[in-house]
Amino acid sequence: MLQASVSGTVIKSSLIEPDGGVLVDARVPESERGSKTLEAELMPKVSLAKIDMEWVHVTSEGWASPLKGFMRENEYLQSLHFNSLRMENGPVVNMSLPIVLAIDDETKESIGSSKDVGLVGPEGDLLAILRRSSSKHVVDVLVYMYEANVHVKQLQDSFSIEIYKHNKEERITRTWGTTAPGLPYVDEFIIPAGNWLLGGDLEVLKPIKYNDGLDHYRLSPKQLRDEFDRRQADAVFAFQLRNPVHNGHALLMNDTRRRLLEMGYKNPILLLHPLGGFTKADDVPLGVRMEQHSKVLEDGVLDHETTIVAIFPSPMHYAGPTEVQWHAKARVNAGANFYIVGRDPAGMGHPTEKRDLYDPDHGKKVLSMAPGLEKLNILPFRVGFTTSHLFANAPIPHTVAAYDTVAKKMAFFDPSRSKEFLFISGTKGNMESLGDCFCYCTVIAWFRRFHTVGSRLGIFLMRTYARNGENPPDGFMCSGGWEVLVKYYERSVTEEAISAVASA
Amino acid sequence: MLQASVSGTVIKSSLIEPDGGVLVDARVPESERGSKTLEAELMPKVSLAKIDMEWVHVTSEGWASPLKGFMRENEYLQSLHFNSLRMENGPVVNMSLPIVLAIDDETKESIGSSKDVGLVGPEGDLLAILRRSSSKHVVDVLVYMYEANVHVKQLQDSFSIEIYKHNKEERITRTWGTTAPGLPYVDEFIIPAGNWLLGGDLEVLKPIKYNDGLDHYRLSPKQLRDEFDRRQADAVFAFQLRNPVHNGHALLMNDTRRRLLEMGYKNPILLLHPLGGFTKADDVPLGVRMEQHSKVLEDGVLDHETTIVAIFPSPMHYAGPTEVQWHAKARVNAGANFYIVGRDPAGMGHPTEKRDLYDPDHGKKVLSMAPGLEKLNILPFRVGFTTSHLFANAPIPHTVAAYDTVAKKMAFFDPSRSKEFLFISGTKGNMESLGDCFCYCTVIAWFRRFHTVGSRLGIFLMRTYARNGENPPDGFMCSGGWEVLVKYYERSVTEEAISAVASA
Repeated sequence: MLQASVSGTVIKSSLIEPDGGVLVDARVPESERGSKTLEAELMPKVSLAKIDMEWVHVTSEGWASPLKGFMRENEYLQSLHFNSLRMENGPVVNMSLPIVLAIDDETKESIGSSKDVGLVGPEGDLLAILRRSSSKHVVDVLVYMYEANVHVKQLQDSFSIEIYKHNKEERITRTWGTTAPGLPYVDEFIIPAGNWLLGGDLEVLKPIKYNDGLDHYRLSPKQLRDEFDRRQADAVFAFQLRNPVHNGHALLMNDTRRRLLEMGYKNPILLLHPLGGFTKADDVPLGVRMEQHSKVLEDGVLDHETTIVAIFPSPMHYAGPTEVQWHAKARVNAGANFYIVGRDPAGMGHPTEKRDLYDPDHGKKVLSMAPGLEKLNILPFRVGFTTSHLFANAPIPHTVAAYDTVAKKMAFFDPSRSKEFLFISGTKGNMESLGDCFCYCTVIAWFRRFHTVGSRLGIFLMRTYARNGENPPDGFMCSGGWEVLVKYYERSVTEEAISAVASA
Repeated sequence: MLQASVSGTVIKSSLIEPDGGVLVDARVPESERGSKTLEAELMPKVSLAKIDMEWVHVTSEGWASPLKGFMRENEYLQSLHFNSLRMENGPVVNMSLPIVLAIDDETKESIGSSKDVGLVGPEGDLLAILRRSSSKHVVDVLVYMYEANVHVKQLQDSFSIEIYKHNKEERITRTWGTTAPGLPYVDEFIIPAGNWLLGGDLEVLKPIKYNDGLDHYRLSPKQLRDEFDRRQADAVFAFQLRNPVHNGHALLMNDTRRRLLEMGYKNPILLLHPLGGFTKADDVPLGVRMEQHSKVLEDGVLDHETTIVAIFPSPMHYAGPTEVQWHAKARVNAGANFYIVGRDPAGMGHPTEKRDLYDPDHGKKVLSMAPGLEKLNILPFRVGFTTSHLFANAPIPHTVAAYDTVAKKMAFFDPSRSKEFLFISGTKGNMESLGDCFCYCTVIAWFRRFHTVGSRLGIFLMRTYARNGENPPDGFMCSGGWEVLVKYYERSVTEEAISAVASA
């Protein structure tokens, strides 16, 4: 018998509805865990890698609502081709990244014709069930099938887990727009993965914990929504990041708050939302970033009263314009109705060519056009009109952050005293190049001798400063935050030296 | 001064609205051609290749409505990422292929800051103007800019033609889902193309003619709609093809008509709509196909009274699930409200691997999910329920065509006397394998000794039959149509022999 077994909690929020109207919650209530676990023990088992567990975490908490688990082919194809899913009742929700579970031939064989499987975590613990559909959809499909005289065998198949081909080449090209070797997520998780994808609805049998001292930062969309309500927020603006916060970031966040107040909001809340899942090897680790973010709040660069710091549990794809939609959509589900987007979001250098993998402007352009995100207010950074603004609700063009040499701090560029600001290209004074400098411009200005410059150079320079024990330009980052980074890079240097000695 | 200069004709049709409500017609009325040509002569010139001219033809007649010319970046990005365009007033229209004009560095340089350019055809004749926007959009943008205090310089830029980067790798991967060398359209037209794309609205200065004796078949969407009205069609079902029509095709088309009559339509009209633009070298040339199609009607395999044969002027991308949406969308604009889709539409073998480039089922699945095509009735071939049916309006599952050895003709498979039908996999009797055989099954059944079989083998075998002067199985194709093919292949063999002698 088919019955609804995943509890969907209807979230009331005056700010923004979760996609599909209902926040998915695929975590089995404590009272049912015993019986479900017994049931799961009899099912064929599928082993999850760490990355799969991160996706179980993400989908079970409803970040990908209305998605209820790993994608079936129907959802996978829509995501791949349209970056969106059409709901049963008509409207479209955004879904730009395929959230899929790859299995190999042997696992496929072992599943056979089973309708459900047990998912086993990296530690060998029975973590979840992947099973047939449990939603209202079932009823619709039953009615359809009855009317269409569809055979019972086919009916059963439609609600089972689903195994379909994992065409890696197509998945990679349509998601990343390249097949160049050196894409971190692709190289680590797709190339070595199995040739099949396993789709179905999740039932998570126990809370997912990382035991890294940061679990208290891992607030679910439901918890975040509750917290926004508790604080009586009338606007929530989300800032996605995977790097330390410097004063350029802070300026933009604080200015956004100021603008929201100007627009008439009484209590805008900032969701400072660092990504906590997989990141590439040379990104600053989550623990260090969280410590740095704490200092930024301690030092008063961001206001404690109006800021919530939490971890977004998703892995990072580095898929630029395709991924930025996911970053925004997940925050809609968490209750944010404003989203800040900068230059080249979720971008990286091309793995094999000397250029950015994505046009740095495409991220915010694509985001402003993205199906299903019309309800989200997108806040782009750069001054200047593009037709894409036409598609965003209530667009608020931002000015460009630059280093004010008189005030000795990051500030918005004032054209009337342009010589007192430092930009990537010095005196060029052209709005395009101003925009390009984004917010690492101060550091970069110190290094004009470099031939190739770009925003990512800021990270490199920050590392160089910290490693050499030098201080960055005054006002670039609060001192507490800076010390965290210096210590991290000192440790890295020591560890590298030790490992070099060990391998010598 | 900006003013509307492209005439948009509002088409009244009880069957189906063109995308965007108005059929684009970018052909300059005869009375204005002289003055516009004089104007164009003063503009910088851009030379068009034959493929570009085909796209000028397609867009100027409104097949891609509401697109008014070559895509600007805003449209290009939406097409690439979402396979659709959002209209100014909210609704989404399908647009899965980027319709773009590539130019090289030198041409970009020569255009400079001009707001309009003249497009010169392959014969050196001034063919069209590509210029600033001429639509209602202008008014919206003006209002927006006024409210946002946007600088006049930026305002001018927004209505100019637009030059933006041609990221070939991203275009190819997101359109074809592969970067394997050997994709016909990519190798011929994208790899050698310039590094920039030029977008703008078209004004075509003279009718586009091919002078190949087939121009009378090239009916515009407007002409087709008029013809459907004249015939008082109450349903129009389109059949896209780029191959000769055999009796398996005919059976499906005739059966569709029968089903539409059963559904209560009084006068369903078939649009037999061979693609007339670029096709790969080993496809049967357009002239031969048109002659073959004529014979099929002459021989009464399809009914003259209820069939319209016309040429669809689009080039072929061979981009499978992405392209089939374009094929369907263009027919919506031409007034068809039913679209027949078979196995692996617009597909081909993978250029470098031994498999189909696309999953043969993905074409019809993706089509049934495609944004903007909800209003189109999609008629898939295969029996069997998939969840994708839920997304199609009024789905009519088709049965499978196979060769009836008793009746000696293509017929729908009758499970009660399964042994009298010939299928690709003989006695397997499994609906999956039946479906796979699609409609070349008869020919293929004759060749069971082949190890790898697929629908495309039918083409190969048809060619082998025709070249060897053998007859195909009785009832496979009408004799008039078959003779056309035999003559074509005889000519090819002779030409190949002559060229082999010449080069020896």
